[in-house]
Amino acid sequence: MSQARVIGPVKIVGTGLIGTSIGLALTGLGVRVLLLDSSPQVAKLSVDFGAGEKFESGQEPKLVVVCVPPDVAASVIASELVSHPGAFVTDVASVKATILTELEASLSDLTRYVGSHPMAGREQAGALAGRSDIFIGRPWVISANKASSKQAIDSVEALALDLGASLIHLSPAEHDRAVALVSHTPQLVSSLLAARLAESEGGDIALAGQGLRDTTRIAASDPKLWLQILAANSEQVAKVVSSLKIDLDAVLSSLEKVDEPGSLAALGKLLERGNLGVARIPGKHGQRATEYAKVIVMIDDKPGELARLLTEIGEVGINLEDLTLEHATGAAVGLPELYVLPSSEEKLVKELSARGWKIVG
Amino acid sequence: MSQARVIGPVKIVGTGLIGTSIGLALTGLGVRVLLLDSSPQVAKLSVDFGAGEKFESGQEPKLVVVCVPPDVAASVIASELVSHPGAFVTDVASVKATILTELEASLSDLTRYVGSHPMAGREQAGALAGRSDIFIGRPWVISANKASSKQAIDSVEALALDLGASLIHLSPAEHDRAVALVSHTPQLVSSLLAARLAESEGGDIALAGQGLRDTTRIAASDPKLWLQILAANSEQVAKVVSSLKIDLDAVLSSLEKVDEPGSLAALGKLLERGNLGVARIPGKHGQRATEYAKVIVMIDDKPGELARLLTEIGEVGINLEDLTLEHATGAAVGLPELYVLPSSEEKLVKELSARGWKIVG
Repeated sequence: MSQARVIGPVKIVGTGLIGTSIGLALTGLGVRVLLLDSSPQVAKLSVDFGAGEKFESGQEPKLVVVCVPPDVAASVIASELVSHPGAFVTDVASVKATILTELEASLSDLTRYVGSHPMAGREQAGALAGRSDIFIGRPWVISANKASSKQAIDSVEALALDLGASLIHLSPAEHDRAVALVSHTPQLVSSLLAARLAESEGGDIALAGQGLRDTTRIAASDPKLWLQILAANSEQVAKVVSSLKIDLDAVLSSLEKVDEPGSLAALGKLLERGNLGVARIPGKHGQRATEYAKVIVMIDDKPGELARLLTEIGEVGINLEDLTLEHATGAAVGLPELYVLPSSEEKLVKELSARGWKIVG
Repeated sequence: MSQARVIGPVKIVGTGLIGTSIGLALTGLGVRVLLLDSSPQVAKLSVDFGAGEKFESGQEPKLVVVCVPPDVAASVIASELVSHPGAFVTDVASVKATILTELEASLSDLTRYVGSHPMAGREQAGALAGRSDIFIGRPWVISANKASSKQAIDSVEALALDLGASLIHLSPAEHDRAVALVSHTPQLVSSLLAARLAESEGGDIALAGQGLRDTTRIAASDPKLWLQILAANSEQVAKVVSSLKIDLDAVLSSLEKVDEPGSLAALGKLLERGNLGVARIPGKHGQRATEYAKVIVMIDDKPGELARLLTEIGEVGINLEDLTLEHATGAAVGLPELYVLPSSEEKLVKELSARGWKIVG
């Protein structure tokens, strides 16, 4: 019946965004999913949304996936290991080392436990933000401990593969170092920057542009959750922030004596290192930087125009990989940006031009 | 003949992105535009692109718009004031106070000069990235000096209004304080963060997600240009960075003694202030935060499906304000996010559902 690698039933504890998303995906693959949440209402919402059935005491899962906030993850994992002696247990928390340390202090046998961390999420939270496809193409860190059995690791790998994720094996310490760099420090820096705006003169912020919006977007995240994450990974985050502080001090010193010889060179080097750093970030689908060709078309800003454009692109048989359209307030035109495979670009431009569309980029 | 407020001919000195964009817009309004660049090839590119005609010595403009990098802006402004005694002169540089100070040191009469700064740009640079519509709905700072004549101010206001921008009057000092906060410090912080990635362990960056991409996007900007901007506004930027450093030091101290009472409270407060700061940023069209309703539809990922969806939305007579579509690698579906006026949301959901579309959010 099931098209899945993972062997069910799978019990999901904590039916927020991630728990519900896993439930939706597994249910879609024909795996039996049992849902439990500390709030019965939240669990019911997830059941109604199609993520699985309500967990009933006495049911025995083969795999338990703990999807609760980091500060309670260790205690929930421990109690699931005890409650279901025949099940493997994993969790999806954003930190791994402190949870393992807590578990090692409370349990003598961790062969059935394997930590994990799907690098997926959405800005929205909660069961109704759940989507079965949020793991597709995203990295999923498998973080085994020294005692983890091969069968336990296989079971968590099967889960990640069933959900379309790419496996990355990292020790808890390696994982925590990596996320301190690519996730936790960016969160903190975004908050530091946004905090400057909280006390600013009223008019100044009217000059805000896209750069400010992008750099501060994640500063709108839930402070309670992030406080837990940062506290649980404080040592690794402190290392990255300390290095950043050395650069910041140098930059500040440059700015304060901008006329002295050499001070501009230090500032210029920092900006160049920023260029290099950005260039190392993989593309938005979690693989190599995507190299789609972009074609910008100028269209009338009225209902039906974009549809007519896309209908004609469909007729030509070219598939859009991405499309963005920013409505230009007050303008009589729209400028949809069409992203296609580079091999399709020439044909797209030729066909659209021949049909009278105005290509502007 | 001309539909414009501004009186031409308008001479544009420096035909990169901003100069060419101004030229395209004015030409489109029937204003005569004379183009000059220190590189004759760049000027020719802008002429060929339709931004105006080549400036010939002896021609007398009514308004000169200086669109050159900040480090040469003052000397070019001064020479234009001298060359064209019958013209008003403005510039579009991202810093205003240092340019004015330089001008005041070299010229005794600045009645015909008014600084300005259109808050518009694109990630691409150069004449061919020029677009006549990049100023529409964006703030345009008019930064008069004490000597600026009313006629000179009127002339620059007319230019900004012709291009569809919103006028904001700020003194050079006020302008520089505002951009230090909303533009220059975010640029520097983004570079500081991205620089951390330059030396990171190879595998760590594989875990990168959208948050890292957003916070570091502008760190890919041109280091030479930004070095000039930061140097020219060093005093104001240093003030903002100094305040940020105080928060950073507190955060670092929190992280280093995370188990001591009270340390988490300091970290939590910073995250909450970040929330408050983000909430103050106006919406992406430069006005009040846009409050569009978002409707997500699940469609088959094949040519023509999005067109069919948009055709039907057009038939219903609803105008899309924004549309984004991220191609989900490996998935059989696409999830276009449709943004409409809140008053249209219910109708859109009802009509699409009735036509068999699957609304998922």
